[in-house]
Amino acid sequence: MRDLRPVLFATGGLLMALAAAMIVPAIADLAAGNDDWRAFAASSGAALFVGGALALAFRGRVWVLAAHQTFVLTTASWVVLTAFAALPFALSDARLSYADAYFEAMSGLTTTGSTVLDRLDARPAGILLWRALLQWLGGIGIVVMAVAVLPFLGVGGMQLFRAESSDRSDKALPRTARVAASIGGAYLALTALWAAMLWLAGMGGFDAACHAMTTIATGGYSTRDASIGHFDSAAVEAVVIAGMIAGSLPFMLYLSALRGSPRALFGDAQVRCFLAAAAAVVAALTWHLAAADELPAAEALRRASFNAVSIMTGTGYVTDDYGAWGGLAVSTMFFLMFVGGCTGGTTGGIKIFRFQVLFSTVRVELERLVRPHRVVAPLYARRPLPEAAMRAVLGFYFAFFAAFAAAALGLALHGHDLLTSVSGAAAALANVGPGLGAEIGPDGNFAGFADSAKWLLSAAMLLGRLELFTVLILLLPGFWRS
Amino acid sequence: MRDLRPVLFATGGLLMALAAAMIVPAIADLAAGNDDWRAFAASSGAALFVGGALALAFRGRVWVLAAHQTFVLTTASWVVLTAFAALPFALSDARLSYADAYFEAMSGLTTTGSTVLDRLDARPAGILLWRALLQWLGGIGIVVMAVAVLPFLGVGGMQLFRAESSDRSDKALPRTARVAASIGGAYLALTALWAAMLWLAGMGGFDAACHAMTTIATGGYSTRDASIGHFDSAAVEAVVIAGMIAGSLPFMLYLSALRGSPRALFGDAQVRCFLAAAAAVVAALTWHLAAADELPAAEALRRASFNAVSIMTGTGYVTDDYGAWGGLAVSTMFFLMFVGGCTGGTTGGIKIFRFQVLFSTVRVELERLVRPHRVVAPLYARRPLPEAAMRAVLGFYFAFFAAFAAAALGLALHGHDLLTSVSGAAAALANVGPGLGAEIGPDGNFAGFADSAKWLLSAAMLLGRLELFTVLILLLPGFWRS
Repeated sequence: MRDLRPVLFATGGLLMALAAAMIVPAIADLAAGNDDWRAFAASSGAALFVGGALALAFRGRVWVLAAHQTFVLTTASWVVLTAFAALPFALSDARLSYADAYFEAMSGLTTTGSTVLDRLDARPAGILLWRALLQWLGGIGIVVMAVAVLPFLGVGGMQLFRAESSDRSDKALPRTARVAASIGGAYLALTALWAAMLWLAGMGGFDAACHAMTTIATGGYSTRDASIGHFDSAAVEAVVIAGMIAGSLPFMLYLSALRGSPRALFGDAQVRCFLAAAAAVVAALTWHLAAADELPAAEALRRASFNAVSIMTGTGYVTDDYGAWGGLAVSTMFFLMFVGGCTGGTTGGIKIFRFQVLFSTVRVELERLVRPHRVVAPLYARRPLPEAAMRAVLGFYFAFFAAFAAAALGLALHGHDLLTSVSGAAAALANVGPGLGAEIGPDGNFAGFADSAKWLLSAAMLLGRLELFTVLILLLPGFWRS
Repeated sequence: MRDLRPVLFATGGLLMALAAAMIVPAIADLAAGNDDWRAFAASSGAALFVGGALALAFRGRVWVLAAHQTFVLTTASWVVLTAFAALPFALSDARLSYADAYFEAMSGLTTTGSTVLDRLDARPAGILLWRALLQWLGGIGIVVMAVAVLPFLGVGGMQLFRAESSDRSDKALPRTARVAASIGGAYLALTALWAAMLWLAGMGGFDAACHAMTTIATGGYSTRDASIGHFDSAAVEAVVIAGMIAGSLPFMLYLSALRGSPRALFGDAQVRCFLAAAAAVVAALTWHLAAADELPAAEALRRASFNAVSIMTGTGYVTDDYGAWGGLAVSTMFFLMFVGGCTGGTTGGIKIFRFQVLFSTVRVELERLVRPHRVVAPLYARRPLPEAAMRAVLGFYFAFFAAFAAAALGLALHGHDLLTSVSGAAAALANVGPGLGAEIGPDGNFAGFADSAKWLLSAAMLLGRLELFTVLILLLPGFWRS
């Protein structure tokens, strides 16, 4: 059996941080005179008690984590934190069942944005703030993991980004802490900037703060039933579009840009490809809405750009029922769900760099068929692509679609139709949020799903968020033999 | 510019063979006193004239084909033969537009089975026989290509099967001719055997002959509007199920089995995996039909086994509107479309050996994450998998889904809904036949599609049938530079 003490210690520490975060909605509810503050206080106490007990019981020489411990910690911390983050949803006036509460919390911490809550406009401040906070905390967690953990484990081709952080220490926890500190500043600054811009664009202070958090985290939880559509403001939408794009870019590059090489950001191969792909999709959808649905060009551009960027980045805000846009739009939205943004940002999905690696591999494969005796190496960002990274990316791509098919069949087993099953599976696995169709589309939610379907989707969100292999590896019997 | 003379010579020879095949439906119509014989005779004359002219004009030192000439020949022969095979559909009493006729002929020669024809029960014998013959000829073409051509070109990982034919001559055309001769015997014998069994099971002689051809070719064209459902006979269905499975197995292994090693067939890794997968799917669907739709177990098994095997092998016969079986069944059918049978048989799709390679790769990827310093080689059929073959399989898988997404978006652009677009694209690319939904599902056909959508699907059938890379390579500018 592997030594799990450092894992339990670190999980305890993270739980205490979660307990601290719960104070924020408690204060908000207390200030608003809402009784839900007790739910947050009780949940905070529980997280503090369990977290403190774990941290105390397993303290010691913990700064050196072996690879296998890092794997266990990554999955365990997400699963355990979600278990406690769910408590306020169950204990507050929302009175969700624990399956619903866990789904809502997992959707938050994985920045997915699928929800089982309705009547958001009438909910107290605490619960709305808690949903936004969960996505915001999940977002920084993802970025730190993508920079400080996954490249060193070599998960899904992320070894390509091992050089992004200048901190290449072998010790996972100190490296993670230092990366978190340096990126955390940029993350906080971007969030504050977007809150200010949303407020200037006409949102109230509370809405602006919540939406800034869920925009930069590309999470998609809103304080309103009609999502961003509620505000019916082109200025708000423009700010949110820019924020979703900002959250999709690699945060390390913001630091490089600040350190005096602003071209680092827009010269990056992945960033350029992401922006070009987003622009192409928006142009095609705008043309379709203008031609097929006969919308004025400006209106078509407004609707297409907001909803396409929202789905491509896996944010999941909506301003419109794109389910009613007709064939091309719905199919485009379906395939867009899988795409995602850049690695090192807050988005989920397959991610741009993997598509670049895959296209490069296919191109080299074709060239090898033309000239079998000339050796052509696939490139990534103009450098030769290491064999191991290519294999990891291709393996990830297959595992992603295998998991997608399994999740979709799992939903179909509950009696859902094909559209609901495949779009629900994609929305969870790629951390998008809304699916397609009447039940879980832009106008619906996941409340009507059976508990077992919600657990399945919670697992799919976790699997997608942690780049699959981080979780799947724990299922190998060989992993647990020392 | 590459030397295309041998390509034109060989295409001419194949056209003359097609002209000879057209005599068969001409005789059938003449015997039945139907005027359509003139259409077949005229088409045959046209094919003979053009084919003879090509063969005469470009005769010479043609037996040595370079790799690039083999690529051009493979795609060109399919495209040109389809152009002439379409003529009877346009010239006969069916009076299809040329887009429709080309679609129908391509669907035949690629053993897809999608159709634009309705009222089959009332059609004359010639046209029904021609559809069956096209699939039968396409089927043997595929098998020969998969054994004698693609492994030597190294397309999509098929180099794994280079050893299957004992004939490893460098000369593509003689090798192809010898393989065709040896496999052709087995193909003909199986077809005759199944025709006899179908006749014994109660089909009329003509129906038995046509269905034997389209069963062994896993093609799916029927002589009846209600497909195999028309005969409403468990015995017929059992014979057809066995035939679809027989057509999905590698034909080279039949020869090995006949040569005295009967265990070659059922000891083969790909065959065992295919049979196990088919059994698992049938068991799951039977359970679903018995539990959810409350069918008696025998009836559930009958419907599930026939329709699941038909879709998995890409045959496309139906006995039932599985679109009405509810969530799990429809979603299962959707994912089954992509699977296919064994390479070296007549089925399309991704094919079993690629799934085996993909699973093995993911497994090794996970093991590498657990023990980064231990080298584990992925296996195929208990032997180490060459790096190049693995890369080719993974590249194929990505190219397949990229082509699928492109074809689905192309259909969506014509205003089709998501279900029609994705299932229509999958049905064409994986050479299945029917799609899902009201329009192109088991009860529908492709007649209502726009011409441009039919050309798109014709291209998708060709692309899928020729294992993508064989066609895609022609799009590289570098290919045409000598």
